[in-house]
Amino acid sequence: MSSARKLYKYDGKFRMYRAGHLTSPTLAYETWGELNTARDNAVLIFSGLSPSAHAASSEKDPSPGWWEDMIGSGRPIDSDNYFIISVNSLGSCFGSTGPASLNPDTDERYRLSFPMLTLEDIAESAHLVVRHLGIECLHTVVGCSMGGMSGLAYCVRHAGKAKRFISVSSATRALPFSIAVRSLQREMIRSDPLWKKGNYDPGSPPVSGQRLARKLGMITYRSADEWKQRFGRERATDPVRVDDQFAAEFAVESYLENHANKFSGAFDANCYLYLSHASDLFDLADHGGSLAAGFKKLKLDRALVIGVETDILFPIEQQRELAKGIASVCADTQLIELDCIRGHDSFLVEMDAFRPVVCDFFESCGA
Amino acid sequence: MSSARKLYKYDGKFRMYRAGHLTSPTLAYETWGELNTARDNAVLIFSGLSPSAHAASSEKDPSPGWWEDMIGSGRPIDSDNYFIISVNSLGSCFGSTGPASLNPDTDERYRLSFPMLTLEDIAESAHLVVRHLGIECLHTVVGCSMGGMSGLAYCVRHAGKAKRFISVSSATRALPFSIAVRSLQREMIRSDPLWKKGNYDPGSPPVSGQRLARKLGMITYRSADEWKQRFGRERATDPVRVDDQFAAEFAVESYLENHANKFSGAFDANCYLYLSHASDLFDLADHGGSLAAGFKKLKLDRALVIGVETDILFPIEQQRELAKGIASVCADTQLIELDCIRGHDSFLVEMDAFRPVVCDFFESCGA
Repeated sequence: MSSARKLYKYDGKFRMYRAGHLTSPTLAYETWGELNTARDNAVLIFSGLSPSAHAASSEKDPSPGWWEDMIGSGRPIDSDNYFIISVNSLGSCFGSTGPASLNPDTDERYRLSFPMLTLEDIAESAHLVVRHLGIECLHTVVGCSMGGMSGLAYCVRHAGKAKRFISVSSATRALPFSIAVRSLQREMIRSDPLWKKGNYDPGSPPVSGQRLARKLGMITYRSADEWKQRFGRERATDPVRVDDQFAAEFAVESYLENHANKFSGAFDANCYLYLSHASDLFDLADHGGSLAAGFKKLKLDRALVIGVETDILFPIEQQRELAKGIASVCADTQLIELDCIRGHDSFLVEMDAFRPVVCDFFESCGA
Repeated sequence: MSSARKLYKYDGKFRMYRAGHLTSPTLAYETWGELNTARDNAVLIFSGLSPSAHAASSEKDPSPGWWEDMIGSGRPIDSDNYFIISVNSLGSCFGSTGPASLNPDTDERYRLSFPMLTLEDIAESAHLVVRHLGIECLHTVVGCSMGGMSGLAYCVRHAGKAKRFISVSSATRALPFSIAVRSLQREMIRSDPLWKKGNYDPGSPPVSGQRLARKLGMITYRSADEWKQRFGRERATDPVRVDDQFAAEFAVESYLENHANKFSGAFDANCYLYLSHASDLFDLADHGGSLAAGFKKLKLDRALVIGVETDILFPIEQQRELAKGIASVCADTQLIELDCIRGHDSFLVEMDAFRPVVCDFFESCGA
């Protein structure tokens, strides 16, 4: 399949936020639409933990992207009006430099020698692409889930260089429940003997630990209410055969099994560990010493915070806290609470609820 | 330490609810107080998944039990008035026959040759002890968590032989969220290479998988709100040293680590798998073809359903469903919704909230 992916290799030392540096990292990105002559119609999208830069289809790559319904001609983030940029997060494994990449200084994979990754690094590396594309000021920064925190880091560190901000099912920082879940997911991978302290054979990754982590992910990405309605106590019609009596018996078990099988092997284990850890580390309060000080660093004309009532990973209280904080420095801040049933994943699957909200935002910008 | 544990060996074939049988199983139990001459003051306690029969201290065993604050002289379930019986669940590993026990037919451990376990089997085996003690009719059956479902099984199958029923943070059956969590916990253990399809060396059990399962347990036993208040983004003061950069950094991570260390090795892995699976299988609707039919089988004079608003494993809606169903056949049914913050575990740790509710119940029985 042809790819719409572009690569930008930064020439020089990229200093990491906590410590260390990367030598000439590569950033993979895709774009949709055209930059106008005023160069003021660029929209930067920050993804959640796992997607590539392929947020939507295009002529060059007609395969559907992770936010297909949201981006493109005639869609809420309309490529007829906007120049849309999606960057594969630094630390990921879909073209951007990460733990699975070769370290040019050693000609070996970074693995755990990759420096500690933060969402500030993801924001700064995306900024390299923005500069490379000749953009001085972004029309809007949009971030989903982990990407909402990366977007917040961007807006705080480049105050005034992003005029608008949309946060989708994100937060100012992770709470202990989410930290506990992600910490346990990382431990599942690290407990798999095939992980080998990060030195696994790329042909034989710690799939067992990755499957467990993926299943725990699914449990926290969706909602108990959705599953109650969808599965109840329905039995599996295609029970997954295993060699003992603890086979998947209920529909919800085979659903998890099928999802884990789909995902398994698609994501590098070390990259996952780094990105998951970065999600725990981010705290807006690190930018100034308190949340209030962090918010004060923002210079936005307009903001939109969207959250979902059944989200247990980025709960609705965190959406309210985020909206209230931004509103304290940006009068034109809107909070939209959606009563979607599909929990954290709603922004990927309940498009009928999310589309009009994002559509209204951009339409009322009058581009 | 001296033990208050008594053993009752049933002489004969114990037929299991689904299929198969056990030859002359042993049941471990403890009692407090004395059976009165009318033999009508016996209270049977069903525990959650992991405890032994040691629910409270006594002269013979002064170590605190798992429901220490609730049982004993002058306590809500008062041993001065009642004869209290706690049986280690069949399938467990604290004296009662389970997968870790020797099969007298083969002189080898049962392991996965143990027949499929159900909560109906736990109820029936407890009934063997009740009969052995010469009790025709129980004053009250009390069940916590999984034990609430075992207690429901008891009351349905011995209608009229238990006059009162107290369900604590339990349900009529598990919902898909809880099934998914428990299924994943079982998979964590089964994925540990040391599990060896159930044939692990007792001296070298699958502790890594058990630790992961225990941590996921903790995440679902407590509540996000509790952890937010308790830990926030506090850093670990005693960071657990591991050999890579993913050491426990946050207080919530070292809390989970310390809890998992405490529990690890205390519970046989195969027993855990059987009891966990039995929790998924139970469904009151199996007794009659529907929930309504199941409730109709109850013959109770009085019932009390206690639940906690922050419980995600046995959510408050399930408490309401259970109370409503019992009320349809037992006019004197009370539902108490507690706003404790500690989730499912509240019945073990928020004793100031639970004590008065149970106390009122027994005091108004006027024993």
